[in-house]
Amino acid sequence: MSTAWVSRYAHRAKNAGSSAIRELLKVTSKPDVISFAGGLPSADAFPVQRFQEACEKVLREQGAHALQYGTTEGYEPLRELIAANMARYGIKAHTENVMITSGSQQALDLIGKLFIARGDRVLVEAPTYLGALQAFTTYGAEYMSVPVDGDGMITEALEKPLRARPKFMYVLPNFQNPSGVTLSEGRRHQLLILADRYGIPIVEDDPYGQLRYEGEHLPPLVVIDRENLRRDNGYSIGNVIYLSTFSKTLAPGLRLGWIVAPPEVIAKLVQLKQAADLHTSTFIQYVGYEVARDGFLDRHVKAVRELYRERRDVMLAALAEFFPPEATWTRPHGGLFLWVTLPESCDSRILLQSALQEDVAFVPGDCFYATPGDGARRHMRLNFSSATPGQIREGVRRLSLALRRELVMA
Amino acid sequence: MSTAWVSRYAHRAKNAGSSAIRELLKVTSKPDVISFAGGLPSADAFPVQRFQEACEKVLREQGAHALQYGTTEGYEPLRELIAANMARYGIKAHTENVMITSGSQQALDLIGKLFIARGDRVLVEAPTYLGALQAFTTYGAEYMSVPVDGDGMITEALEKPLRARPKFMYVLPNFQNPSGVTLSEGRRHQLLILADRYGIPIVEDDPYGQLRYEGEHLPPLVVIDRENLRRDNGYSIGNVIYLSTFSKTLAPGLRLGWIVAPPEVIAKLVQLKQAADLHTSTFIQYVGYEVARDGFLDRHVKAVRELYRERRDVMLAALAEFFPPEATWTRPHGGLFLWVTLPESCDSRILLQSALQEDVAFVPGDCFYATPGDGARRHMRLNFSSATPGQIREGVRRLSLALRRELVMA
Repeated sequence: MSTAWVSRYAHRAKNAGSSAIRELLKVTSKPDVISFAGGLPSADAFPVQRFQEACEKVLREQGAHALQYGTTEGYEPLRELIAANMARYGIKAHTENVMITSGSQQALDLIGKLFIARGDRVLVEAPTYLGALQAFTTYGAEYMSVPVDGDGMITEALEKPLRARPKFMYVLPNFQNPSGVTLSEGRRHQLLILADRYGIPIVEDDPYGQLRYEGEHLPPLVVIDRENLRRDNGYSIGNVIYLSTFSKTLAPGLRLGWIVAPPEVIAKLVQLKQAADLHTSTFIQYVGYEVARDGFLDRHVKAVRELYRERRDVMLAALAEFFPPEATWTRPHGGLFLWVTLPESCDSRILLQSALQEDVAFVPGDCFYATPGDGARRHMRLNFSSATPGQIREGVRRLSLALRRELVMA
Repeated sequence: MSTAWVSRYAHRAKNAGSSAIRELLKVTSKPDVISFAGGLPSADAFPVQRFQEACEKVLREQGAHALQYGTTEGYEPLRELIAANMARYGIKAHTENVMITSGSQQALDLIGKLFIARGDRVLVEAPTYLGALQAFTTYGAEYMSVPVDGDGMITEALEKPLRARPKFMYVLPNFQNPSGVTLSEGRRHQLLILADRYGIPIVEDDPYGQLRYEGEHLPPLVVIDRENLRRDNGYSIGNVIYLSTFSKTLAPGLRLGWIVAPPEVIAKLVQLKQAADLHTSTFIQYVGYEVARDGFLDRHVKAVRELYRERRDVMLAALAEFFPPEATWTRPHGGLFLWVTLPESCDSRILLQSALQEDVAFVPGDCFYATPGDGARRHMRLNFSSATPGQIREGVRRLSLALRRELVMA
């Protein structure tokens, strides 16, 4: 009996890498730990009663369809609802521009599958979303990183890597995971001019765009791109593939996301999705539609904003109160995360060990770099959506104890 | 504005091929068409009331968890229930051997992703499941085909292709899609001896195993493999990766399937699934568990068997009554499909055009061959689970009219 095939054939899993977040989540399942580590929405934000009503109605009126196979593109009324909802944010998509995915993660996977052959380059922000790196790395992506400052990706540093012709740019313009920063309007225009000049498509990942707690909504890249197209009186197809999700507005346990793209791109992604999982759960799509419809989604998003704005403010106040002056942090206008920069002498991986002894958890910054450089370990990502305000204040206090201990030893 | 990237970068979608089934399903959505084309379970078999109760209970008692992110492996009580249920069919799996997938199609996709590099060979039956070919082709698989007869894959023809060292063999032992035939017990043993001799793993796809309408249950390959292992007093890891699903027993709209494999393989598949969609919908897993538990799954499967056995018998009787003596067909002991072999002069693609004029649909046989040979177009697949008994009889009558017309013209 030969069982060597397990290691011999498993060439891809080697590339998937180990997930620091997975291991961390195991630690943070201890009941006493206050976790700023995950990206979990608060269960207080789940509209459970609305889900009850939606499930009851869907099964009573449409059980035979809701439990049957469906089309790969997704449930048409849901695609229409998403198109209509995005129009409120300036995104003028038709139903045929929208494909339902099993969460945004599947959108990233399908885009990786469509674009990336082994060794192809992808341009990402530094830092960027870990899950996107995992999805693209599976297909053998190599990375070029452009650093982020308080105004998002530094577009002034883009031209040189674009000359090396990456397959696409992956950008999180709003309240970026992990840094919490937002790409400024000027840089959005600059980014699109460069994408156009070099013919490099942009994957715009926008899971948090609706969760803005202050300031004015900025136009998504896909909107600016469309406006540019109209000015040129030109092409029917843009440079931007736009992704979003219900995970942060309704509930992540649904696994409901979507892709907005030109019909030519949607057609190719539909082929790949059919081979990947036939379609996203019909029942979940019917229920998601029933929950979101009749303006509920907008009303609910307003309540979620209130909930998370308070938690962000509590975390910012606690950081100001407890953290030593050598540390700095971003002040996100929305989303779920902020980003702490530690004094030069600090290593956030070492700090994490110390923090876990104080029963508080976070994700070390170097997890979020495609190519971690010297400074990567000075950062840590803090999530402010999951813990209650009381836990947030107490967690930041505990974290400050661990940090001061490290500073003394450093 | 350059938009050349859409065609320039989309290297993988080219391999996905066009889906004859997709195009057909568009035609068959006409209300008057009797369709034997899809693989749709009957909506009469969906336990809608049980779903109502399950959704209500899950949201009332566990809404905060059921709507939250979950682990990639799947909801542990569901994995335990699946392990316990499979034990009734001789499969002694532990919870850690079971990974939940977004339908069996995702299992095929993840297995393709794990094993196949461009140009790698995969050994399949001829004919075989079209969706598996789509999943594997996405990763650049090349195929070696072994023909099927009334006792399933002809294992006597296996040795030569195995010497060419395919990455794995993909086998549907029970009521195969599309042919309806079952791999005999003798050949099951023969297959495992050869897999062992050449060190080639087997992917055993078993969506229909519980839907047996006559005859004795045959041991799954994974069970025989385990017994061989014990006799050798040998290894803790077998040669078989086993797949099944709730799509044909509870409802396909859930998209709930599973993989049974050695823990070493599960660990690699979990990495790939995390990058592909993080995890299968938590809510769907909780609901699936609540529906299946307390013996409901077994009781319900008995009712589904009665429903489909009658439909199979109606189709067999109608074929005997209406079809010309030059045509032959399989007599499946379970599952959803039977396989018609037409006279040599017939081409099932041409017959389909004629059949659609009679408002009846099926899938031409050549869709199910990795490498369609001369005889492939003599076959057609007929589904007997979706239409009612009255529709089945009428549909076979219409089909016989189209066939007789073709025979006259041939």
